[in-house]
Amino acid sequence: MSDSDVKKVVIIGSGPAGWTAAIYAARAGLEPIIYVGVPKQDPGPVLPGGQLMLTNDVENYPGFPEGVSGPEMMAMFQKQGERFGARIVGEDVERCEFDPEGKVHTLHTSDGKSVRAHAVIISTGATANWLGLESEMRLATTGGGVSACAVCDGALPMFRDQPLAVVGGGDTAMEEAHHLTKFASTVYVIHRRDELRASKTMQDRVLSKDNVEMVWNSTVVDCLSEKDSFGSDKITGIRLKDTKTGEERDLAVKGLFVAIGHTPATKFLRDTALSFDDAGYLVLPGRSSRTGIPGVYGAGDVADATYRQAVTAAGMGCQAALDAENDLGERGLL
Amino acid sequence: MSDSDVKKVVIIGSGPAGWTAAIYAARAGLEPIIYVGVPKQDPGPVLPGGQLMLTNDVENYPGFPEGVSGPEMMAMFQKQGERFGARIVGEDVERCEFDPEGKVHTLHTSDGKSVRAHAVIISTGATANWLGLESEMRLATTGGGVSACAVCDGALPMFRDQPLAVVGGGDTAMEEAHHLTKFASTVYVIHRRDELRASKTMQDRVLSKDNVEMVWNSTVVDCLSEKDSFGSDKITGIRLKDTKTGEERDLAVKGLFVAIGHTPATKFLRDTALSFDDAGYLVLPGRSSRTGIPGVYGAGDVADATYRQAVTAAGMGCQAALDAENDLGERGLL
Repeated sequence: MSDSDVKKVVIIGSGPAGWTAAIYAARAGLEPIIYVGVPKQDPGPVLPGGQLMLTNDVENYPGFPEGVSGPEMMAMFQKQGERFGARIVGEDVERCEFDPEGKVHTLHTSDGKSVRAHAVIISTGATANWLGLESEMRLATTGGGVSACAVCDGALPMFRDQPLAVVGGGDTAMEEAHHLTKFASTVYVIHRRDELRASKTMQDRVLSKDNVEMVWNSTVVDCLSEKDSFGSDKITGIRLKDTKTGEERDLAVKGLFVAIGHTPATKFLRDTALSFDDAGYLVLPGRSSRTGIPGVYGAGDVADATYRQAVTAAGMGCQAALDAENDLGERGLL
Repeated sequence: MSDSDVKKVVIIGSGPAGWTAAIYAARAGLEPIIYVGVPKQDPGPVLPGGQLMLTNDVENYPGFPEGVSGPEMMAMFQKQGERFGARIVGEDVERCEFDPEGKVHTLHTSDGKSVRAHAVIISTGATANWLGLESEMRLATTGGGVSACAVCDGALPMFRDQPLAVVGGGDTAMEEAHHLTKFASTVYVIHRRDELRASKTMQDRVLSKDNVEMVWNSTVVDCLSEKDSFGSDKITGIRLKDTKTGEERDLAVKGLFVAIGHTPATKFLRDTALSFDDAGYLVLPGRSSRTGIPGVYGAGDVADATYRQAVTAAGMGCQAALDAENDLGERGLL
């Protein structure tokens, strides 16, 4: 392998962070290669393009006053990256050997090959945890009223003044429930135990709302739906099972928000010297995209348990490409 | 004044950061008011919408594969914010009285009025410093080949394989020059003295490039231009004056990049308890948008001397709105 085989920048992951990094790196002449990954079920679908591929209406990504569908938006990101010369590879990166000195990193991919690069941008995202019901996945992927993000979807007209349910008992579930109280007639918080894991403050904040109703000791075992006047399947209720008595009952809701956490896609990095927090998120020590290893950068949800929005991920992708360009220049690798 | 007069969120500044904060805050039901400012000359134009109002082709904001003009893009941001109910006020905020406990902040505006708010998002941006030439401003605002951002504009087709000039001697000028070496036939770096202020590393990085030529002891006193086949005025050269001999000569270039620094719009905040760095940028201590004062947030170029891109500013605006929503909820102010 000659040194010309060492790529300047390899990007792992193809959501808003990865593609924004690709757009910036390509425009800067860094000839980035973006590993967009292999489609899989885990248990929900994991697709090139990331979580937005499962989002019907993106209303809050700035620049689209009328909204845009997630897949459409990601197609535009990709087109823009390819226009400037980013090269796509449809494989997963399965294992990384990072050079502690940051000169040449080696990535092993799902086709049994490997690629070497001076700079690696990790933007593999995080996936929402799902309950694992067939009806849940079907409605979540067709705009049927099931979502894993209240901040993204809660303000949609279909949820206004309707009874909605949130499943979960942690801080995120409370945040989602609180957000929904502004739009819903009633927010049912479904939790499998008889107390919440969420902090006291978060609990108080939600439980003090007039339109919140707790449903304790219950799990969701099915989503009920009916075709609307356009022939599109919409949620009409959820089937609950009492975790103590085993009894089942139906609860009428027009939206279900699954808030049982996210899992960052960092498993393939666990044998590296990178730092992770307790939940597995990549830790970035400063305000930049730099990790603890020179030439390795993090961007998007994989390194952000807090905001997790398309536009914040895109911003971080831009930072990573600019940091990489700057560092490669400083180290005479351009 | 009753407590109902206290707004939940006031946003100061209307570039990508301000409008993204407005979109998110409005969708979260926080009824934001955005002070978009009064148009002025300082010495270049300062407009509601920010620096993008002076940018003809935005090729790197993700989501627009064919590019978009800066003013068009900002019109879309505004439309999106207004769609969700953000309220616009066409005044400047001239003075802030921040409540150290973060409960009620008071802002004094250019119409002699004041507004009170629980949360204040500062997204007033930064303006590029210009040479102050009439020809420079005219060409900069009409896509004539004068720019204050090589990362934004350097990759445009009009600059490919052409002689380009960068004015400045600091680190930013070196970064801009380095970025341009990838596209230009020759990059002339024009500096009024006979040594650079830039760090040794940055100097080496640029001076080692074959297509960089230093022009010492020189200032740009005029931009020369000709109408192209579409009747649009394009730069054809610059008039240089030797700072030692006073002699003038013309240098043929197809692009001029003014890199003599930026000035963050923080003057109106100097008598507050906020922290600023030496260059006047608002300091955000952590990875969030929170400043040292509870309920006061920073977003976009006003708090970012490093990246200064539309998409990074937009990401920061989103963070500020989500941080504000979260904090207001925690403190029972929603």
